[in-house]
Amino acid sequence: MKLATLRTARPDGQLVVVSADLARCVSAGRVVPTLQAALDDWDRAAPALAELSAQLDAGAIAAQPFDPASAHAPLPRAYQWIDGAAYMSHLERVRSLKGSRDAELQSIRPLLYQGGSDSLSGPTASLVVPSDELAVDFEAEVGVIIGPVPMGAGRDTAARAIRLVTVLNDVSLRRLVAEDLQNGFGFFHAKPSTSFAPVAVTVDELGSAWSENRLHLPIRISVNGTLYGQPNAGIGMHFDFADLIVEAARTRNLAGGTIIGGGTVSNTHDQTLPIRADGIGFACIAEARTAEKAKYGRARTPFLKAGDKVRIGAVGRDGRSVFGDIDQTVTILSN
Amino acid sequence: MKLATLRTARPDGQLVVVSADLARCVSAGRVVPTLQAALDDWDRAAPALAELSAQLDAGAIAAQPFDPASAHAPLPRAYQWIDGAAYMSHLERVRSLKGSRDAELQSIRPLLYQGGSDSLSGPTASLVVPSDELAVDFEAEVGVIIGPVPMGAGRDTAARAIRLVTVLNDVSLRRLVAEDLQNGFGFFHAKPSTSFAPVAVTVDELGSAWSENRLHLPIRISVNGTLYGQPNAGIGMHFDFADLIVEAARTRNLAGGTIIGGGTVSNTHDQTLPIRADGIGFACIAEARTAEKAKYGRARTPFLKAGDKVRIGAVGRDGRSVFGDIDQTVTILSN
Repeated sequence: MKLATLRTARPDGQLVVVSADLARCVSAGRVVPTLQAALDDWDRAAPALAELSAQLDAGAIAAQPFDPASAHAPLPRAYQWIDGAAYMSHLERVRSLKGSRDAELQSIRPLLYQGGSDSLSGPTASLVVPSDELAVDFEAEVGVIIGPVPMGAGRDTAARAIRLVTVLNDVSLRRLVAEDLQNGFGFFHAKPSTSFAPVAVTVDELGSAWSENRLHLPIRISVNGTLYGQPNAGIGMHFDFADLIVEAARTRNLAGGTIIGGGTVSNTHDQTLPIRADGIGFACIAEARTAEKAKYGRARTPFLKAGDKVRIGAVGRDGRSVFGDIDQTVTILSN
Repeated sequence: MKLATLRTARPDGQLVVVSADLARCVSAGRVVPTLQAALDDWDRAAPALAELSAQLDAGAIAAQPFDPASAHAPLPRAYQWIDGAAYMSHLERVRSLKGSRDAELQSIRPLLYQGGSDSLSGPTASLVVPSDELAVDFEAEVGVIIGPVPMGAGRDTAARAIRLVTVLNDVSLRRLVAEDLQNGFGFFHAKPSTSFAPVAVTVDELGSAWSENRLHLPIRISVNGTLYGQPNAGIGMHFDFADLIVEAARTRNLAGGTIIGGGTVSNTHDQTLPIRADGIGFACIAEARTAEKAKYGRARTPFLKAGDKVRIGAVGRDGRSVFGDIDQTVTILSN
């Protein structure tokens, strides 16, 4: 099934079940009010939501049109957002930027950072930054929303805890990355609100596109209508989502509703921008710039400026957006 | 007024109003079910809760005994937990351990790290760690719970957003700190679940003990009944809570219910453990060990082991615990 959260006056919005083709939706209010409430009571809620989903797809119940512009992030505020770094080619390309220090260790155990989860952004919310002089970048990622995982959990427990899959934009202010990391306390100011696709999807609904705890679909990214990348999230993912969850639970329990990101999707290649229609490209600008520096001696692709439009979505086997697209415009904070 | 959350079968527990002397409490259920719900609707909820508090302290309504052992953390799960480093003498003492790199910068802008907020611990919950070979330490801190703060907020907005004050233990696994910081992504595994005092208190209730956005009370810490420290949280706090909130909101909005910690309370002195009854001492073991290394050439105070009992509380002007005490026993995770 596919789930989304519509914006309302309440901070957690209203959970809806969305049709497989993303055209229609129906309130989940008769089962649970919010996605967090569903995750808190998943064993009871999931079958009831699946039943609603089946009725919706069969046209057996009244539905309303699903408008992604009315959607919030699936979890508008979450109790935890942990981002991993599962794609080695992303780390290799941005290592000098990120200032991380031990390449060998990073391929043995995944890097994780604790993100801000209190104010997540919906798919069409403005991408608000304090200034566009901060090297504003996107990072297109796959993320999972999990049930509770106890401290010290193994891979099987971790894999079974995956409830929903979605796509997200880990917005990054590159000019603040070095400052954050030099402080020694990790990412903070360099990571403003993370944005989410309108829809989160259960693993069973993804069919063969989900296997080995990975999403085997291209993530298509365009900026102002120009294709920047369409790397396949199933390729080059050195750590799968079970690995990331196991690592996150090493010294603590993870509550239900925790979001785990796989890190910037990245496939190995020697392309630079612009790419052809069948090119692979990049899921963040920093990688594109690193490739340009290697090839041309200088970076050519600019970071995002006010008014730039970023579109990110996973492309299904039928060519359609699986989770709906993130479609945001960069906006400068007005004081 | 004083607020606490009693443990129930529900993850967010039940909000209660606690009497000024911490002896009795009354359900806040007629106003709001949980502390987060109160924070989400503070302008309406706070006056109603204050009215309940006045009736409770006047003995005008039926109440039940308040048992700190029944209390959860005030927010058993929060949308955000940000810890600052406001006391320069803590940073100076542990700088070599933490691997942070720029002493000068740290006194101009406060260091912050994003903590895990999904599974916070109540005051008498076991302090569960995967092993006591990880150099288990406490960090006694003052924390504030805030209302919503917009990106780019100034000091006045920040100060006005402070809703509640409490005491917390930022449990730290020192052996994992270097590994976390060497990864370059900041604290993660070194910071298991943070523990909280049973009661959170409004600023007005604190009277003269709260001024200049600081708590001017000693935080008393004992391990297995032996006094380790009673530094005054109002002394040596280089950044106040308004500074910490302003810094946290530089590139993002902060949601209501965000918890901000002031960092390990630390006063400048040249004592070592054991301290006298009127000594100042330390609010974490790492600082005590650094002082011992300087004086004796080696650290003598051991980190915490299974079965050790840590007690932390703020002492009011009348000698009584203001927020109730954190009183935890170190326990090894059983698999």
